[in-house]
Amino acid sequence: MSDKNLFLIAELPGFTPQIGRLVSMMNYVRSTTLSAVAGLTVDEIDYLHDAQSNSIGALLSHIAAAELGYQAATFDDRDLNAEEKHEWGAAVELGEKARNEIRGHELNYYLGRLEQVRARTLAELGRRDDRWLEVGTTMSSGQRVNNYFKWFHVFSHEVNHRGQIRWLRTRATKRP
Amino acid sequence: MSDKNLFLIAELPGFTPQIGRLVSMMNYVRSTTLSAVAGLTVDEIDYLHDAQSNSIGALLSHIAAAELGYQAATFDDRDLNAEEKHEWGAAVELGEKARNEIRGHELNYYLGRLEQVRARTLAELGRRDDRWLEVGTTMSSGQRVNNYFKWFHVFSHEVNHRGQIRWLRTRATKRP
Repeated sequence: MSDKNLFLIAELPGFTPQIGRLVSMMNYVRSTTLSAVAGLTVDEIDYLHDAQSNSIGALLSHIAAAELGYQAATFDDRDLNAEEKHEWGAAVELGEKARNEIRGHELNYYLGRLEQVRARTLAELGRRDDRWLEVGTTMSSGQRVNNYFKWFHVFSHEVNHRGQIRWLRTRATKRP
Repeated sequence: MSDKNLFLIAELPGFTPQIGRLVSMMNYVRSTTLSAVAGLTVDEIDYLHDAQSNSIGALLSHIAAAELGYQAATFDDRDLNAEEKHEWGAAVELGEKARNEIRGHELNYYLGRLEQVRARTLAELGRRDDRWLEVGTTMSSGQRVNNYFKWFHVFSHEVNHRGQIRWLRTRATKRP
């Protein structure tokens, strides 16, 4: 993404008009997530505020895992497969499993995973058009949900956890 | 908003096509904020996790205050005036001032403020069109920012704090 356009929700080269606006929002959200974790040490990334807390590293993995899940759902029309569930299970579930399994990694480990997942998202969105965004499926509740909603959900889910990361960062770094 | 369309980001009656999609996102985000605080008591709303924490009530006021600020910026081309700053100052600033001033209110007090501010937002957006969403201003950094970005920022700011509200709710209610 170009910094010049970071504060514009608008068409983007390489994407159809509506997808460009969606990607503008995803790009901005990602830039704020990266700012929220910039410079963190392994100890800060692994910081557990209390017995119920998720670490910043677990939340970063969870953000990438959610995006991977929606890739499978919207690009491949399937759930995560056994291999993906094995690799990403703790990140999907968070909680106890994540506290045990997701720790000891440098920031770059998490950033690499986020970037790797995002690269496929952008490549796939670049191959689709605005009509695809409107395509819907029916939820078990009977409600309709379209692809635009699913990808809106991916970035707003990221913002939700970014809010928690900011809160945790203040406590983990002891620099209010 | 109709529940039937809660999971669709799409055109909405009463709004131009792009504004409809924006309002779809704002509606969904608001529904999740309301779920996040449903049933909270005054003690839970006022819960302070530590000396730096904001209460859930302060965060709800902050969400409404940010929306009010962007109304002034985008609908009225001005900053908050002295009277608004007096009424909303603690909600805008959060921190010590909010811990002292924003407390002792029932949930309905906060929901009423959110609803009152949102009613004007929807009325004003209903009078505007997709070209208005693209209209931009130049930030002090020299970067361009358009109205779509500003309203995207309002709802993603809400999600950021909703993430914190969910985290605090778990601790405030002692029901993990």
